[in-house]
Amino acid sequence: MAMDHAAAEGDHLAAERAAARFDVEAMKVAWAGSRHAVDVADRMARLVASDPVFRKDNRTMLSRKDLFKDTLRKAAHAWKRIVELRLTEEEASLLRQYVDQPGYVDLHWGMFVPAIKGQGTEEQQKKWLPLAYKFQIIGCYAQTELGHGSNVQGLETTATFDPKTDGFVIHSPTLTSSKWWPGGLGKASTHAVVYARLITEGKDYGIHGFIVQLRSLEDHSPLPGVTLGDIGGKFGSGAYNSMDNGVLRFDHVRIPRDQMLMRLSQVTREGKYVNSDVPKQLLYGTMVYVRQSIVADASKALSRAVCIAVRYSAIRKQFGSQDGGPETQVLNYRTQQSRLFPLLASAYAFRFVGDWLNWLYTDVTQKLEAKDYSTLQEAHACTAGLKAVTTSATADAIEECRKLCGGHGYLNSSGLPELFAVYVPACTYEGDNVVLLLQVARILMKTVSQLTSGKQPVGTMAYMGKVQHLMQSKCAVKTAEDWLNPAFIQEAFEARALRMAVNCAQNIGQAANQEEGFYERSPDLLESAVAHIQLIIVTKFIEKVQQDIPGHGVKEQLQNLCNVYALYILHKHLGDFLATGCITPKQGALANEQLGKLYAQVCWSLFLLLVSLF
Amino acid sequence: MAMDHAAAEGDHLAAERAAARFDVEAMKVAWAGSRHAVDVADRMARLVASDPVFRKDNRTMLSRKDLFKDTLRKAAHAWKRIVELRLTEEEASLLRQYVDQPGYVDLHWGMFVPAIKGQGTEEQQKKWLPLAYKFQIIGCYAQTELGHGSNVQGLETTATFDPKTDGFVIHSPTLTSSKWWPGGLGKASTHAVVYARLITEGKDYGIHGFIVQLRSLEDHSPLPGVTLGDIGGKFGSGAYNSMDNGVLRFDHVRIPRDQMLMRLSQVTREGKYVNSDVPKQLLYGTMVYVRQSIVADASKALSRAVCIAVRYSAIRKQFGSQDGGPETQVLNYRTQQSRLFPLLASAYAFRFVGDWLNWLYTDVTQKLEAKDYSTLQEAHACTAGLKAVTTSATADAIEECRKLCGGHGYLNSSGLPELFAVYVPACTYEGDNVVLLLQVARILMKTVSQLTSGKQPVGTMAYMGKVQHLMQSKCAVKTAEDWLNPAFIQEAFEARALRMAVNCAQNIGQAANQEEGFYERSPDLLESAVAHIQLIIVTKFIEKVQQDIPGHGVKEQLQNLCNVYALYILHKHLGDFLATGCITPKQGALANEQLGKLYAQVCWSLFLLLVSLF
Repeated sequence: MAMDHAAAEGDHLAAERAAARFDVEAMKVAWAGSRHAVDVADRMARLVASDPVFRKDNRTMLSRKDLFKDTLRKAAHAWKRIVELRLTEEEASLLRQYVDQPGYVDLHWGMFVPAIKGQGTEEQQKKWLPLAYKFQIIGCYAQTELGHGSNVQGLETTATFDPKTDGFVIHSPTLTSSKWWPGGLGKASTHAVVYARLITEGKDYGIHGFIVQLRSLEDHSPLPGVTLGDIGGKFGSGAYNSMDNGVLRFDHVRIPRDQMLMRLSQVTREGKYVNSDVPKQLLYGTMVYVRQSIVADASKALSRAVCIAVRYSAIRKQFGSQDGGPETQVLNYRTQQSRLFPLLASAYAFRFVGDWLNWLYTDVTQKLEAKDYSTLQEAHACTAGLKAVTTSATADAIEECRKLCGGHGYLNSSGLPELFAVYVPACTYEGDNVVLLLQVARILMKTVSQLTSGKQPVGTMAYMGKVQHLMQSKCAVKTAEDWLNPAFIQEAFEARALRMAVNCAQNIGQAANQEEGFYERSPDLLESAVAHIQLIIVTKFIEKVQQDIPGHGVKEQLQNLCNVYALYILHKHLGDFLATGCITPKQGALANEQLGKLYAQVCWSLFLLLVSLF
Repeated sequence: MAMDHAAAEGDHLAAERAAARFDVEAMKVAWAGSRHAVDVADRMARLVASDPVFRKDNRTMLSRKDLFKDTLRKAAHAWKRIVELRLTEEEASLLRQYVDQPGYVDLHWGMFVPAIKGQGTEEQQKKWLPLAYKFQIIGCYAQTELGHGSNVQGLETTATFDPKTDGFVIHSPTLTSSKWWPGGLGKASTHAVVYARLITEGKDYGIHGFIVQLRSLEDHSPLPGVTLGDIGGKFGSGAYNSMDNGVLRFDHVRIPRDQMLMRLSQVTREGKYVNSDVPKQLLYGTMVYVRQSIVADASKALSRAVCIAVRYSAIRKQFGSQDGGPETQVLNYRTQQSRLFPLLASAYAFRFVGDWLNWLYTDVTQKLEAKDYSTLQEAHACTAGLKAVTTSATADAIEECRKLCGGHGYLNSSGLPELFAVYVPACTYEGDNVVLLLQVARILMKTVSQLTSGKQPVGTMAYMGKVQHLMQSKCAVKTAEDWLNPAFIQEAFEARALRMAVNCAQNIGQAANQEEGFYERSPDLLESAVAHIQLIIVTKFIEKVQQDIPGHGVKEQLQNLCNVYALYILHKHLGDFLATGCITPKQGALANEQLGKLYAQVCWSLFLLLVSLF
């Protein structure tokens, strides 16, 4: 698609492209991570773009029913191509990504199969995975209920062990216990991993996963006792309406005992609940993995939106005509730049922090396997917080890009309304962003409380160990250019994050009890958590641009983007920095001045070429 | 609709309603402006809700074509009911508002008819208005072109006078000159007011309006030389897809000379361009009127979103269960309150500033009729700025309300996705918000530059006359409760707005020339304009709650909301207040503390009843 657009726009953008002052191919590699990653992405993008079955231009015109049929057709065709071309797992995943239409296969591959892999015994995996791999069964992930999302421990569906039949009775005791939202459930799935309260010998053992067949493999009709439906239209003209998010109710549905996922715990033939010796902490590894991929997706969605808005801003001309000459490109307006360029910088920031999270996942997994849980809490805080901050920023940024295209951004043909509508649920799924940030805040408060006891914080919280210095430090910036020094940026962000956390801890300390204090100060705690996470993003960006980066001019451009990102965040949250005395009003004004200079310096034009890949 | 919801929700919300600590009926009057306004709105809402033709529940399920047909059916039915019931103009307008589905009639009544009234001679009005009133012709407003929106002076369509035929030749000379966006153009309209460059005797006199017939009154087919189409799908599942926004191209279409709208200027039989003696400033009155109604609409849209989110937050329970007891209403979480309650306060703030703008419109009109143009510039700055600030805040707030409903807000059945998609173009139409704020900034800079010459600023800029005091003043707040004193709030907001404007003026003064300086500092100028407009909103809210407001507890609640709004804005823009030294970090922390206390005090429950009216 990128190629078709490029061809159609050739005349209008040629001047911009020619102005690139760096090695564009090398920049692509810097973004994608390797030459191999660029090439395989390019190949898969072309494969999708050149295949008429995968056409996208009519997507927002289709009725809901036709859109759903179109999704089924594309999913089947993608599967066929993957098999025919013997694509690798990496290639197949990229191909599905470029098809870019949410559908039941996302849940089958992304949730159902991993749930069995992660929570099923070897025996269970041997039985169920081959069926799933060959699509002899289609699975979904039935966790969320009408009445319970964030609070998973409050789910109401029951799975009661019946020793007489050596099986579980799955039941929906209330209206609010109806499973609600699972993708692929409404129409497509034959099976689900269902989360329910395990009850045996009269005792409630909390939430466990069960493989439950929902529909007949003969005629796809719901099995007895199973009520199924689609939950209706969603935000956008197309967006997630290609997905059959569903509702599911059970009326005493029986499944054999061995369909409980038994890797971490099991129920014996006699009905005894037994924990296995597999450490429960292993589940955290999966969570880090899923959230790492959400952060990576944020940078992709954001770069697509920014690409459209940059191209539009280069082509659109408005005002500023002298004596009937050409008008000014809107890209040249400082107001357009000050809204658009920080979003471009954010796309790179999220990209690089995503790469780093990928490393963290490997690190955590290795440590877990060695039963070293020392960094687990910090890793959890960091991935949960990055998920929250990057998805919220990306959703807002896509909508801002849409507005930056003026009236034209409101047309579906701009691509932006759908990009927003399909992206924005990322703020809610896999952990509501506010709930996640409060988890981060809780770990921050715990870390602060341990500082006096001399316990050294680890990983992304290590800076908090410099508490003596950071509570007193004074920013040494004297000129606008001083703000280009990463050491000054780093220290200002560290001091801001630490002082906000310490302030919160002190305020909580004054409350009658800790829980009450945490509750009363929770809006401040959200801001404190955001400050901590933004520090991580800035730090990882700085670390990236201090590495060797090959290609003429690439490193300089990335350094500029890094500075834009940091100074933009500083200006946006100026109140934090001033209120905590980390910088003076004068230094804040210098940062803003430097930001304006960076807009003029950075070689923006090229980025519209670059970001077109994703 | 509100009534049906109330009945269905009875059990869940009864406790909240019973907790109301003020006179709900009196609050409705305070919101609507008068008992009469409450009653007529209530009657019209019931009329629409009880009529099956106006049903809305299937709206997001319809295909684009069926949705458009549904809009035609509703428009015709509304017209029939208005005639049958002999509704007044006020009633008819409210009825259309509650039908709440954008359609060609909005442009016919809202733009086509007013354009003829405002820009047509008496003779032209006599000829065209009766046809429009009886729907013998359907009109739209064809201004925006594919290549030109904000810069109206850059429109390319030409209207060249041909003395041989005593008429104009309307022509689209380029692709970018295609009319693009006009509502009602794609399918419905027979006529349009077309804006084009008037050319006579070889000279270009700039943009003028012309009445042009587009389609046959016999069979509705496009007239020769006229190319027409619909511009395609727009944001949302329904939203503005009920509207036939269109594209229009002219190939040398001829119209008689008397179809130029000639109230302000005309072309004689000989082709001479002549200005009439009607002052052009009269057009400003219309602009103030249109923007005043946009501000009023902002408060309505926002109150609907807040109503949904408050009700959801009262019913939804999550976490916090002790030993299997009921969970906590999410309305009781400080994080939910700190996001939701400021939006409720904003709805009231926008409502009251809208009422005041209504007064301003009358005032400006009277002054214009007396040829007194002294307040025109200030009135323009104030209405343009209020349009920009209230529509941006409302669009963001609707989306925030959607997120506050968690996953459920993503379903069309929550009403919020469509409310957002149908509202958000208000940020772009009738003046892009960034362009409008720069106009405000330009007037602010002019006012600052005149301060030294002793010229006293008027109206909403009068505070700038206190420059000596405000540049030096120190905020006297010592305790959190001090922030409940409106004098402290008022002065802090005045000092912030003035100091930001003066800073900008000083920075511009250092540039090589004024225009270059204005360009370089435009991102700061936007922030300065926002600060000035937020001051106006806060001031008008304070003035409102200082009046007598009847009804037990009503005034107290509105005072609380006024304080919530002001302190929320102060906290959100803390950087402005601290950077300009208007308040100290300690005072900022006290404001935030007081804000938290207000959340606990305000009697929120009742508002969900109240806002259900709109």
